[in-house]
Amino acid sequence: MSPYVEVQQFYARHMHLLDAGAAEEWAATFTEDGTFTGPGEPEPLRGRAELIATMSKAAAEQKAAGEQRRHWHGMVDVEELPDGNLQATCYALVFSTFQGKDPQLRRTCVCRDILVRENGELRVKARFVTRDDLP
Amino acid sequence: MSPYVEVQQFYARHMHLLDAGAAEEWAATFTEDGTFTGPGEPEPLRGRAELIATMSKAAAEQKAAGEQRRHWHGMVDVEELPDGNLQATCYALVFSTFQGKDPQLRRTCVCRDILVRENGELRVKARFVTRDDLP
Amino acid sequence: MSPYVEVQQFYARHMHLLDAGAAEEWAATFTEDGTFTGPGEPEPLRGRAELIATMSKAAAEQKAAGEQRRHWHGMVDVEELPDGNLQATCYALVFSTFQGKDPQLRRTCVCRDILVRENGELRVKARFVTRDDLP
Repeated sequence: MSPYVEVQQFYARHMHLLDAGAAEEWAATFTEDGTFTGPGEPEPLRGRAELIATMSKAAAEQKAAGEQRRHWHGMVDVEELPDGNLQATCYALVFSTFQGKDPQLRRTCVCRDILVRENGELRVKARFVTRDDLP
Repeated sequence: MSPYVEVQQFYARHMHLLDAGAAEEWAATFTEDGTFTGPGEPEPLRGRAELIATMSKAAAEQKAAGEQRRHWHGMVDVEELPDGNLQATCYALVFSTFQGKDPQLRRTCVCRDILVRENGELRVKARFVTRDDLP
Repeated sequence: MSPYVEVQQFYARHMHLLDAGAAEEWAATFTEDGTFTGPGEPEPLRGRAELIATMSKAAAEQKAAGEQRRHWHGMVDVEELPDGNLQATCYALVFSTFQGKDPQLRRTCVCRDILVRENGELRVKARFVTRDDLP
């Protein structure tokens, strides 16, 4: 499997876990010390425990509100770094659908990941996300 | 071509046929006995004749209304099953554009397919679609 | 890398350049005599100078308005032509986000490209785009 396809397959499972609210399994697709630098956040999330805590809270709020989010990555640019890791830069869409309502496009973003292999599987070592609606 | 890429290529042609209203060619991308279990439907469609009938009716209504739909699959997770078939689980978006109007996002869905090879080409043996706005 | 993956990787960088307003680098992803037959335009753009001029003007207008566009290609059908070139037919989405506002889906389109290799890299020799909201 080419690195490009490997990244596409990785993002698919990664997003299915996120949108299913599977916080621990989703966090396991980051390295143990993985970081998530989100838009408009003063500090990045650092490590799986922080990722799980933040993601669980959001998932619980969405579930209580009857909201299903869907995260799409696309226009994926994969670059093999000299150290053998991958840098993936892509666009991201966030959709939101409430029970009985029309779906909404909430965000268009850009995501840049440093992806490393652990035991043969890709994991996010560092993620940087920017939102198009914020400076 | 890796199975992952094969599935992406397959979905592209499959959706181009669907959105062009090419009912018979689209139904031919299912197996002869292929099934389509749609959201909110009491019974799955079974076999190409039922697929053609349902799809032709929808295509005629859309054409009469000046509506162009576009179906997108994305975040495709492909799993090779022990019997050599493929299971593809992906997100689906349905867009609708009427002549002279702005496009609309109509649906966000999840689609799971069992894909088999016949004469070297992928075909849908069973499709299961759920809509995010329905329970 | 399979031609299919090569096209996906090409479109990613191509669109990142377009949406970043990098007119010259974007135009360099067309052949020197590349054409762009747009929707509702009386004449195609011909050659990099025309592509740069048209794209720079649009990028300047968007920047002045605080608008970030994002172009997505998807459902990509890649066909290898007898002469070794590629024909890629895909769906295109155009999103627009203004600072501090919700994102908007502006267009759903179909894009057909003739792609050739120059010095081992894909370039657009001819592009044909249609909009779903226009006849």
